[in-house]
Amino acid sequence: MRPVSRLPQTIKQLLASGKATSFTTITGHIRSIRRQKQVTFALIDDGSCAEGLQAVLKNCSDSLTFGTAVRLNGKLIPSRGPGQDIELLVDSAEVVGPCDPSTYPLQAHSGNTTEFLRSNLHLRLRTQLMQQTMRLRADLKSAIESFLNASGFVYCHTPIITGIDAEGGGESFRVEEGKEFFGAPAHLTVSSQLHLEAFQAALGRVYTLSPCFRAERSMTGRHLAEFWMLEAEWTSSSLDELCGFVEDMLKHAIGDTLDHAWPRVTFHDAIKILEASQQSFAFPPHPSQPLQSEHEKYLAEVHFKGPVFVINYPKAMKPFYMRANDDGETVACFDLLVPRVGELIGGSVREEREDALRRNMLQAGLISEGDMAENAYSSYLSLRQHGSLPHMGFGMGFERLLVWIGAEKGLVETGSVREAVGMPRWKGRMGIRHNTQLDSTEWISLLKRLC
Amino acid sequence: MRPVSRLPQTIKQLLASGKATSFTTITGHIRSIRRQKQVTFALIDDGSCAEGLQAVLKNCSDSLTFGTAVRLNGKLIPSRGPGQDIELLVDSAEVVGPCDPSTYPLQAHSGNTTEFLRSNLHLRLRTQLMQQTMRLRADLKSAIESFLNASGFVYCHTPIITGIDAEGGGESFRVEEGKEFFGAPAHLTVSSQLHLEAFQAALGRVYTLSPCFRAERSMTGRHLAEFWMLEAEWTSSSLDELCGFVEDMLKHAIGDTLDHAWPRVTFHDAIKILEASQQSFAFPPHPSQPLQSEHEKYLAEVHFKGPVFVINYPKAMKPFYMRANDDGETVACFDLLVPRVGELIGGSVREEREDALRRNMLQAGLISEGDMAENAYSSYLSLRQHGSLPHMGFGMGFERLLVWIGAEKGLVETGSVREAVGMPRWKGRMGIRHNTQLDSTEWISLLKRLC
Repeated sequence: MRPVSRLPQTIKQLLASGKATSFTTITGHIRSIRRQKQVTFALIDDGSCAEGLQAVLKNCSDSLTFGTAVRLNGKLIPSRGPGQDIELLVDSAEVVGPCDPSTYPLQAHSGNTTEFLRSNLHLRLRTQLMQQTMRLRADLKSAIESFLNASGFVYCHTPIITGIDAEGGGESFRVEEGKEFFGAPAHLTVSSQLHLEAFQAALGRVYTLSPCFRAERSMTGRHLAEFWMLEAEWTSSSLDELCGFVEDMLKHAIGDTLDHAWPRVTFHDAIKILEASQQSFAFPPHPSQPLQSEHEKYLAEVHFKGPVFVINYPKAMKPFYMRANDDGETVACFDLLVPRVGELIGGSVREEREDALRRNMLQAGLISEGDMAENAYSSYLSLRQHGSLPHMGFGMGFERLLVWIGAEKGLVETGSVREAVGMPRWKGRMGIRHNTQLDSTEWISLLKRLC
Repeated sequence: MRPVSRLPQTIKQLLASGKATSFTTITGHIRSIRRQKQVTFALIDDGSCAEGLQAVLKNCSDSLTFGTAVRLNGKLIPSRGPGQDIELLVDSAEVVGPCDPSTYPLQAHSGNTTEFLRSNLHLRLRTQLMQQTMRLRADLKSAIESFLNASGFVYCHTPIITGIDAEGGGESFRVEEGKEFFGAPAHLTVSSQLHLEAFQAALGRVYTLSPCFRAERSMTGRHLAEFWMLEAEWTSSSLDELCGFVEDMLKHAIGDTLDHAWPRVTFHDAIKILEASQQSFAFPPHPSQPLQSEHEKYLAEVHFKGPVFVINYPKAMKPFYMRANDDGETVACFDLLVPRVGELIGGSVREEREDALRRNMLQAGLISEGDMAENAYSSYLSLRQHGSLPHMGFGMGFERLLVWIGAEKGLVETGSVREAVGMPRWKGRMGIRHNTQLDSTEWISLLKRLC
């Protein structure tokens, strides 16, 4: 293997090495600047870390203001102030990108509202909240992918444009109209699972971290029209192994702060806990009704005070591809519920028996007797006709992981999936800057804050 | 850090450990079976590696045929045959997924044509070509991402649904019609670059490996409607650093088989080489005309016999965001040309000066005087107005990398990007199984081969 690249060191790398004797060049933004009589202190941010690097300037031009992009040459010396081992004693400073304080939105409106920042996504990324969230996002992706790779999983790129509406939920986006390009109606994928199962049947252990799309009309902090989903499938049929693997994967990704065994309860017992809770829910819990978000949060936040697997849901509440348990009433599945989010991961043993799967699909109205050859799901059934492997898997909304872990680790409190991704899309909102396309009520509220 | 998962070992892991004394269970497909009088040899494929594991069965049911999914319990013993250190002496064998040889397409048509396999994507994945390609794809992804992470780059998820048509090429797909969902016309991204530049301006060094979409009507082996692109952007303005970094990254990913310095020639000199070549080209090379695919392949395959950077193209041939060189005629850019593919990577220093960028955009017709506030590109210009960082970057078609490296390393010869991704989409073709949606000429040619 060749060595790592010959790029100059980032501030993060400089701070980690701690060497205080070398000359260096730093290019970045001024995050803050403090002028004293003899000397000026500027905190330089190159995007690599939360700390930034303190620069000490003997002569400092007035053009060095908050947000300005500068190139600084100087010598790293031991820091005399607290907080950092080293600081940059500047020989020469050059403004490479001026930033007029009178027009820079981030400065003109310091303490910008969440909504203002959402309307200026390209500048929102420069806030510390977003920088830290994006770095955490990348770190979590690396940690999870490393874990899966080391466990023998093969990363697969599943298709985004598809003819299948995974669970028949009808929330998919259409790509173009009619049949002009692909020769068939095209949709944006709502889940990679069905395609990933075809990869699984060839490669044994597979995963993907892929964009998914749902035409969600609900405007909660848990839903986006475009989001990223980690999905994995592998050969096995043990629900116990499935939950254990998910627990190991997440604990690996987030370190040991949650290092106790996560409880598992059946759906049936979860309902009993909710019924016994004396909590006043908007939707009374009932064994014939799905868990509501308020129920999920109660279980994770109040009752178990941490992640909890709810397993073996009633068959009628879950999609056609989940494998029936021997009781005939429930399916071999789990939802992992966590604080602040509710459902973080859902997974199940998949129905690998052709006859059972076909019955489920008929019942769900996805196929009808006799149309198999033409049906979009025929390949899914075909996998069961030709050397069907017992298999199982899960899907995790990646933004939800950020909302949970960011707060859990005390790193970033995004509160909403809209702050867990750089450029979120939801109903009525798209693009880097879309002030002009806000709903009228949002407009008015924004204008009130700005005026 | 917690240990790696507690999943059972894959065949790849078993072969790597080489331990020959433990009892184990393997679940996989029968890749080949050879019955002798006393004993049967079956090669078991769990998808983890090209080798598979040889299983030795004393008693073997007739239902164990090619493609059947089996679960085998037995003991790993030193192999008596050549090729592998260990083999599985089977105690018990269970068919978990039967596979009728009379209906299994992969067996009924052994030596399946490329076109037949493309029409059965879900089963195509079980061919050795596709399995190896998918594993190579995952390995290259890991190697490149490790290199970028170690070099201080932050992985960013750029948006798929966007209001921007990156270079104004008009080849984007529309998502839905009208303004009903997002409040503005929505497209599938043709390149993440412009959005990635907003991430760059916040995080310094960024990259993404993201799906891109082009409504390409050309049906060559270099084009897909849906493909994956690696894109990176970072703070710097040195074309020399840009080419060097790309070279280091690729050499890291592919090992040392190509370990000599890759030549760099200017566009101007490349044209001279072509003109002097005595080669008869369909398009005669000319300094005022872009390089054609035949020119690119000639340079990489015949003249330089390996990767070559062509740099400093005429300004008029390249998009608006590339930074002008001091000569006023050329831009600070490169295309990396490789054998079998032609252009693998394109990159440039980006125009970070607002006035120059604005002139380019006016000239390209992307903006007109006075409409800036409403324009989809306003945020792109805004990045230049507020602390603009000098930066540069590149984009690489991931499928093209597979076509080149697969052949170069002698691993897989895909020949076409259509075999470099699991479920390719191109004009007229989508879905896992689309026999019924072939063009009529393709239909006839397919039927002729099958009958």
